[in-house]
Amino acid sequence: MVNIAVMGYGTVGSGVVEVINTNSDIINQRAADEINIKYVLDIRDFPGDPIQDKIVHDVDVIINDPEIRIVVEVMGGIEPAYTFVKRCLEAGKSVVTSNKALVAKHGAELLSIARDRELNFLFEASVGGGIPIIRALNSCLTADKIEVITGILNGTTNYMLSKMFYEGADYDEVLKEAQDNGYAERNPEADVEGYDACRKIAILSSLISGQQVDFEDIYTEGITKITKKDMLYAKKLGMTIKLIASSKRHDDHVHAIVAPMLLNKEHPLYSVDDVFNAVFVHGNMLGDAMFYGSGAGKLPTASAVVADVVDEAKHLHRNIMTMWKNEKLTLLPIEDTEKRFFVRIEGNTDERRDEVEKVFGPVRIVNADDLDGEFGIVTEVMSEGEYRKKSSQIEGILHMIRIED
Amino acid sequence: MVNIAVMGYGTVGSGVVEVINTNSDIINQRAADEINIKYVLDIRDFPGDPIQDKIVHDVDVIINDPEIRIVVEVMGGIEPAYTFVKRCLEAGKSVVTSNKALVAKHGAELLSIARDRELNFLFEASVGGGIPIIRALNSCLTADKIEVITGILNGTTNYMLSKMFYEGADYDEVLKEAQDNGYAERNPEADVEGYDACRKIAILSSLISGQQVDFEDIYTEGITKITKKDMLYAKKLGMTIKLIASSKRHDDHVHAIVAPMLLNKEHPLYSVDDVFNAVFVHGNMLGDAMFYGSGAGKLPTASAVVADVVDEAKHLHRNIMTMWKNEKLTLLPIEDTEKRFFVRIEGNTDERRDEVEKVFGPVRIVNADDLDGEFGIVTEVMSEGEYRKKSSQIEGILHMIRIED
Repeated sequence: MVNIAVMGYGTVGSGVVEVINTNSDIINQRAADEINIKYVLDIRDFPGDPIQDKIVHDVDVIINDPEIRIVVEVMGGIEPAYTFVKRCLEAGKSVVTSNKALVAKHGAELLSIARDRELNFLFEASVGGGIPIIRALNSCLTADKIEVITGILNGTTNYMLSKMFYEGADYDEVLKEAQDNGYAERNPEADVEGYDACRKIAILSSLISGQQVDFEDIYTEGITKITKKDMLYAKKLGMTIKLIASSKRHDDHVHAIVAPMLLNKEHPLYSVDDVFNAVFVHGNMLGDAMFYGSGAGKLPTASAVVADVVDEAKHLHRNIMTMWKNEKLTLLPIEDTEKRFFVRIEGNTDERRDEVEKVFGPVRIVNADDLDGEFGIVTEVMSEGEYRKKSSQIEGILHMIRIED
Repeated sequence: MVNIAVMGYGTVGSGVVEVINTNSDIINQRAADEINIKYVLDIRDFPGDPIQDKIVHDVDVIINDPEIRIVVEVMGGIEPAYTFVKRCLEAGKSVVTSNKALVAKHGAELLSIARDRELNFLFEASVGGGIPIIRALNSCLTADKIEVITGILNGTTNYMLSKMFYEGADYDEVLKEAQDNGYAERNPEADVEGYDACRKIAILSSLISGQQVDFEDIYTEGITKITKKDMLYAKKLGMTIKLIASSKRHDDHVHAIVAPMLLNKEHPLYSVDDVFNAVFVHGNMLGDAMFYGSGAGKLPTASAVVADVVDEAKHLHRNIMTMWKNEKLTLLPIEDTEKRFFVRIEGNTDERRDEVEKVFGPVRIVNADDLDGEFGIVTEVMSEGEYRKKSSQIEGILHMIRIED
């Protein structure tokens, strides 16, 4: 029997208990041992709930119990999660977490503590919920140099952008609707400003580069400025707009970014709608691959957490996770990255085309239906620095959206 | 240093050598040891090829060399592959194979020999080439009861059906073209008759059920009867036709089938075109997930083989693969499985509608452009047995295609 403790009995924590109870037969068979939940740590009590008799309020009960081999941290946030997880590892217990903030900030340190003690620190559920992208990078795509990871890593914003695209709704309406049906928090900042996706791509970037990528270094732009007008242009271009989190290798450099981007119909992420997440990967031998699934939600996330528990139960005393070094990776400055840009400009095409092309060179002009007093252009490929210089010479730029080719 | 031998220096075998040489730095880092190709077994010599000095013609050289820890079997076919692999395992060497015929027929036995000796027998590349679906089932989706696996598992037929759909080409033209550009064999039977996809879904069915599923028991229908006329109807229905290999759990039964099926636009496999493969999975906790990538090709397949080699190098003396029992699983008879059916019938709608609906009950009528003297119907959901009984009462049925909902 493998005794485990669950820290945090919120949405994910109760999901973990539900998954283990519902599928105990196959889970125990795959773990080749019985997974037993001995404690659930929470500040609250849950009278009437079957787990009430397992509730403890003091983390030391867990840390000091030698029978506990695996601890599941699903409290979220940096503290006290970081202190608890570190103490559990130092006490010789493997840890599973779904906490992206914790992994993005302290992953390298916690991985090395686990490695030194022949334990495991696994965090599949911290990125892409039910999509097994971390294990794929850790144990499936091990023969490849991963050159590109491009993902839709936030379900809330993908749901919102899908609604705006298909229903022509505007940002505020869809945000309100997403909040009303529980897809978005009352304070949606972490999702709509791209902070959530940023932490996730920081984790994936660290994994593929083998070095610490600080999320603070990743250029991050949310979807709050995307309007139904932008979607009209997207339709006209045969494209859609998604919040893209990507990490690309240019020779020895890595370029990471989170921003709303235009994708054409041929892009594998084009048709990933609603709350779904997907991660597109390009390996130098494998070529293109894509992983698609529920990026969030109680049970898909819990399913990923429990799969990590099973893996740790199969590997007690044996470290299986690829490390990344604490040493920090310097990302390629965004000014040096190249792409095409879609730009909305005040005025009308005939009057301003020459002026615009004098600055940007040849551009593709696009006019959306029923939008007077403005027009759109698609530039040639240029560096972001170049774009910034050129765009500063143009009056009346309304909005710019990058194009992911 | 971990010494390995490669049996078979054909397309995949030379790909394995190329992958290991190209990515040796990251591969050795992930394996935490140096992977060294000591022998390549082939009946031929390769004068001038850098591996010539590693070529051996006698498998006993490999079997009797205690330095060889891992053997890669990429010869294909049942014999001598089966005998060689079995002897390698019995000699204490882990084995990696891309050989779906071997795994489908002897997987259970070879897995148990490996298990008994604390070795590994891995076969990621035998299904879906570069798509890590087997490892996903083995180590990622371990918290879930997998209720549905539906896949496009054969790149050749998917390429052909894509051409027929988008270019309105007919079967013989696209087959010739596929053969000319190397996507199809001169003898295309294994692909176009569905035998290849059948072995692959047999392997996946064995994995999710934990019991031996004999490919001979799986109802298998190829794409040779699909015509451009069928594609005209598919377009009219807003659907496409794919060669689907699926395995579904009904209570305690498993139903497996390989057949061309109509998919609507909302189906996650609808937009998987050309030589790409994809596997859609539904877990009782995870919900829907999809894995997409190059299903074949020298380097993607070799990439999957080498990833297995890395995993075995990390797990010498430790069995990591889920078993399936030798005990055979009885599949649900196809007569008892339920779906909707699309049927092309001679004559014209007005004259025959009543007669057809008297037999099938209410049907959706569909008429394709420029097709006179026939019409199509879509039935309600019914069992295959029921369909067969009813259709035998209708004269002039031209073709039936199942609908995957």
